[in-house]
Amino acid sequence: MSEPAKELDNQRRVSPEKSIGRQDWSTWPTYERADLGLRNFWYPLTWSKDVGSKPKSVKILGETVMLIRDGGVVAALSDRCPHRGVPLSLGTQEFPGTITCPYHGWTYGLDDGVLKAAITDGPDSPLCGRVAVKKYPTEERLGLIWIFVGDDENPVPPVEVDIPDELLQHATTIGGRIYPGRDGNWRYAAENGFDEGHAKFLHRNSVWAGFRQLPVWNETKVVRTNDDVWVTRKQEAVHWEADFPGLGTWSQAAWWKLSKTAARPEQDRRVDPTIASLKLPSKASVRLPYILRIAYPMYIHYEWAVPEDENRHRYVQLLVSFKQGIGKQVFKLKYLTFIRWAFHGQFTGQDAWMVDVMDCPPERLYRPDKSVIEFRRLVEKQNREAGYVPSPVEDAPSARVSES
Amino acid sequence: MSEPAKELDNQRRVSPEKSIGRQDWSTWPTYERADLGLRNFWYPLTWSKDVGSKPKSVKILGETVMLIRDGGVVAALSDRCPHRGVPLSLGTQEFPGTITCPYHGWTYGLDDGVLKAAITDGPDSPLCGRVAVKKYPTEERLGLIWIFVGDDENPVPPVEVDIPDELLQHATTIGGRIYPGRDGNWRYAAENGFDEGHAKFLHRNSVWAGFRQLPVWNETKVVRTNDDVWVTRKQEAVHWEADFPGLGTWSQAAWWKLSKTAARPEQDRRVDPTIASLKLPSKASVRLPYILRIAYPMYIHYEWAVPEDENRHRYVQLLVSFKQGIGKQVFKLKYLTFIRWAFHGQFTGQDAWMVDVMDCPPERLYRPDKSVIEFRRLVEKQNREAGYVPSPVEDAPSARVSES
Amino acid sequence: MSEPAKELDNQRRVSPEKSIGRQDWSTWPTYERADLGLRNFWYPLTWSKDVGSKPKSVKILGETVMLIRDGGVVAALSDRCPHRGVPLSLGTQEFPGTITCPYHGWTYGLDDGVLKAAITDGPDSPLCGRVAVKKYPTEERLGLIWIFVGDDENPVPPVEVDIPDELLQHATTIGGRIYPGRDGNWRYAAENGFDEGHAKFLHRNSVWAGFRQLPVWNETKVVRTNDDVWVTRKQEAVHWEADFPGLGTWSQAAWWKLSKTAARPEQDRRVDPTIASLKLPSKASVRLPYILRIAYPMYIHYEWAVPEDENRHRYVQLLVSFKQGIGKQVFKLKYLTFIRWAFHGQFTGQDAWMVDVMDCPPERLYRPDKSVIEFRRLVEKQNREAGYVPSPVEDAPSARVSES
Repeated sequence: MSEPAKELDNQRRVSPEKSIGRQDWSTWPTYERADLGLRNFWYPLTWSKDVGSKPKSVKILGETVMLIRDGGVVAALSDRCPHRGVPLSLGTQEFPGTITCPYHGWTYGLDDGVLKAAITDGPDSPLCGRVAVKKYPTEERLGLIWIFVGDDENPVPPVEVDIPDELLQHATTIGGRIYPGRDGNWRYAAENGFDEGHAKFLHRNSVWAGFRQLPVWNETKVVRTNDDVWVTRKQEAVHWEADFPGLGTWSQAAWWKLSKTAARPEQDRRVDPTIASLKLPSKASVRLPYILRIAYPMYIHYEWAVPEDENRHRYVQLLVSFKQGIGKQVFKLKYLTFIRWAFHGQFTGQDAWMVDVMDCPPERLYRPDKSVIEFRRLVEKQNREAGYVPSPVEDAPSARVSES
Repeated sequence: MSEPAKELDNQRRVSPEKSIGRQDWSTWPTYERADLGLRNFWYPLTWSKDVGSKPKSVKILGETVMLIRDGGVVAALSDRCPHRGVPLSLGTQEFPGTITCPYHGWTYGLDDGVLKAAITDGPDSPLCGRVAVKKYPTEERLGLIWIFVGDDENPVPPVEVDIPDELLQHATTIGGRIYPGRDGNWRYAAENGFDEGHAKFLHRNSVWAGFRQLPVWNETKVVRTNDDVWVTRKQEAVHWEADFPGLGTWSQAAWWKLSKTAARPEQDRRVDPTIASLKLPSKASVRLPYILRIAYPMYIHYEWAVPEDENRHRYVQLLVSFKQGIGKQVFKLKYLTFIRWAFHGQFTGQDAWMVDVMDCPPERLYRPDKSVIEFRRLVEKQNREAGYVPSPVEDAPSARVSES
Repeated sequence: MSEPAKELDNQRRVSPEKSIGRQDWSTWPTYERADLGLRNFWYPLTWSKDVGSKPKSVKILGETVMLIRDGGVVAALSDRCPHRGVPLSLGTQEFPGTITCPYHGWTYGLDDGVLKAAITDGPDSPLCGRVAVKKYPTEERLGLIWIFVGDDENPVPPVEVDIPDELLQHATTIGGRIYPGRDGNWRYAAENGFDEGHAKFLHRNSVWAGFRQLPVWNETKVVRTNDDVWVTRKQEAVHWEADFPGLGTWSQAAWWKLSKTAARPEQDRRVDPTIASLKLPSKASVRLPYILRIAYPMYIHYEWAVPEDENRHRYVQLLVSFKQGIGKQVFKLKYLTFIRWAFHGQFTGQDAWMVDVMDCPPERLYRPDKSVIEFRRLVEKQNREAGYVPSPVEDAPSARVSES
């Protein structure tokens, strides 16, 4: 009869209230207040081919932006006419190089956002040159439109600082899918992406995992790369089976799981020479504002979670091959017939499901969350707000992250 | 010309602002703050047959609870993994006697809610036994799953204290319908159920009233039963017709109203012997947390309004027969072919309509609301919060309730 | 290389923050707080033929009102039974001259809103004559039901004070469309209606503009009529083409634009004699609470934006002909076959689109907004709140409105 008594005692000791250690995100103050995203970074928005002469409205970092292509160049202006608050994206182009509000014909220069004419007030309208909408810097790279959302006092860096070098230095073939309006704050999407713990469990029966068995658990280190931009996570040990005390043995072994997933790209026999030349310390790495890079032997997956508002983000996922010649066509075919729906559809759809239902803080982190913690610390350290002094999180013992 | 002047004077005297007497529920402080329900009671949730090995999520008293059946026993745990806030009800059973979160494989014991394994952190995860989710006491009685939502400092009473004795002491045949997510706060549903005033008017043309004429108005006493658990309302006088000054005569008489509804079960010639043995002082009685009992000669209707959140409740309605032998089958047939849709569908659907559109306080009570007031006083007196001292509402003259 | 530098300088000078002059509506305090509308005015609600013995619920100035016709007369009472907050419009008529709540049979006089009987409490219910719901004055004119939403301390003026004289003094034929629940605050709808600037631009390709070319811009004066009730806007100069510096020439000329729209009715050869006799200084005029009058040669368009709540209004639009004899039938035919959908559908639907997407303050007004400003000043000056002292906006130089 001592057994039930012991159980009761145990239950009391771990009452829900007491079991919560780190309840909030106050350890990472920049991160905590970044519900609308990190400013002063370049973000990919949409495919270049999807912006033409018809204006398009997008949300980013809580701001509404109109995109239009004029004379081959994409322009981005604040999507709100200062006159009466009507979206400029509902308007038309009445003169080259301008956008005109549909309500009263206020006409703004696409190059600078300045009011060039108020059509219904005649040519001598005294407001011309004295009213302007915010103009956002934009660039086109890799077949995508990039936008910089900055604070006014900050200079605008070249877009190249926020695009992985290897994508600019090599010829690429790119497949991808972009989902605006995905549910969940961008930080949930970012943490989910770099999170070491979930992949092998949540995705264990995905089509993408397919016939491969995933590990039960890993021992992982989170390390900084030499360029100090990327943080990567590195499997120190991989466990394919485990015996849980009192519960039993657990593994993902099944008759149809024909192989075990390679833990690191260098273990693969065949690795694309460009990818090999990157000398990546591990498969998964992350950098700000949130670029996830998952290196496979023959291609690399990149993803962004571009903040829209507190509750939604734009999910941009690319699959990049560095192959040339016939290899390009083989990659395209493979992407369109399989990877596009199995990886960029069903697999990342499982992530979208979790990003939608996650709800924290409060939270209770565990050892594999060192990857999540390191991402939060990255935000504290590489914050680009003007006048920002990094908080001393580097040595905070509470973070308990082992670095190499 | 004095007539219009008088009318104007009258209208001024009863301007809406002044006509409201009891504007709020401050006379009943426990009741007023119980928008999420009364804690430390057992509530019926759903049919036993509807909970199996697939987890189910329900809302009760503002909390989200996962139900699952394991080894024949139903367990109820808080439906939120403390790690990142993902609902456990989206998870799977990886080991007997446990539930595993879909995201990272955190695995909780169904018997105590304690973390038994964090699969993706390996067998030596230091959090095991140090994290727990709230475990809710559950029982199965009458083919229903019952749950106790308590404050931690309170002991858990046996479920029998919150089930009417007659249902436990006699063999029963039970029909019923359960509606989760019904609109309206649970107190509206409870007050509507025991409300003496509305039944004869709101339901006058219901299918359930059928060919029976209902009274215009009654004189009613609200009385306590000997066991001091139930409160009942008792018709002292029943009026089948009334002459309203200045308006005219009103009754529900119609050629198709072949009989007048009996006011009390003992007036019926034939009464089921078990029901007769209950010696109920009247047809309608109520007890906490809100169990309404309407005794008909041959069966009894019971209902619960189980709070979900401030705006919704789970409506549980049972029809119980104490018949044996062939009487059981006759009852089942009658329930399925008529009572289920006429009473537990159209009739209580009229109540659902009112519960949805009701909106008070402010309110202005009238004499038949002594039944509503007595229910509110019951909440004040039988409140089970730890350390609760009943407020002195018993003798409050403002309640104006006559008791026997 | 000096060109880009200059542009940058220009852009800085007109940074969005600095370009906003008048940011809020604090210049017009009555107007600013009138998000629920102007009280103590008569408003048109719906067609007389649409209110019968079945109660109808409408929203106006944030209040919910029940309409019913009894003995040929329309009555309007507050649509909330003070007993438990149930809408009276869900009830029935149990006695002539009354409405009865569906829940407990509380019965109110339609003539005064006073409780005449509480059916389920018997003829001697002590609340009779001591409870009342608010009674709203109503009238029927022009085939419409009018309601007065007043403050209690204010006397109720005759409905004629809030109906344009010409509609009462002449025989009329009326077509129209009424849209409840249109998106946008009533002030957006009102300002859009009298706004001088937008019509020629927003509507330039509407079916109603049809084969007529509209001007590019006008020079406009806003003037008061002799009766001091209406404010009208008067074109001083009309420009059919304009050359915008740095952009080019702009006009609405097109091969299918066969004529230029007449700027004033008196320019038309044929004008209806009744309309001519009004000696209107111009085509467009406005008065409180918001009645827009657009005089065409052969008929006049009137519209109201009746406030429902902060975000919605009831849009009432009438087209009135003063013709007699065969002219009545010709007008009816023309309205039903063309004007109803081209003007009262597609054309004012473009306005509805803007009223929905407008979002200000902040705002940045321009010269043609003198019409909008004058409407705001009218609200300040003709406000009917009890004890209201007009604010000295008349001479405010900031308004910059030139009057004749």
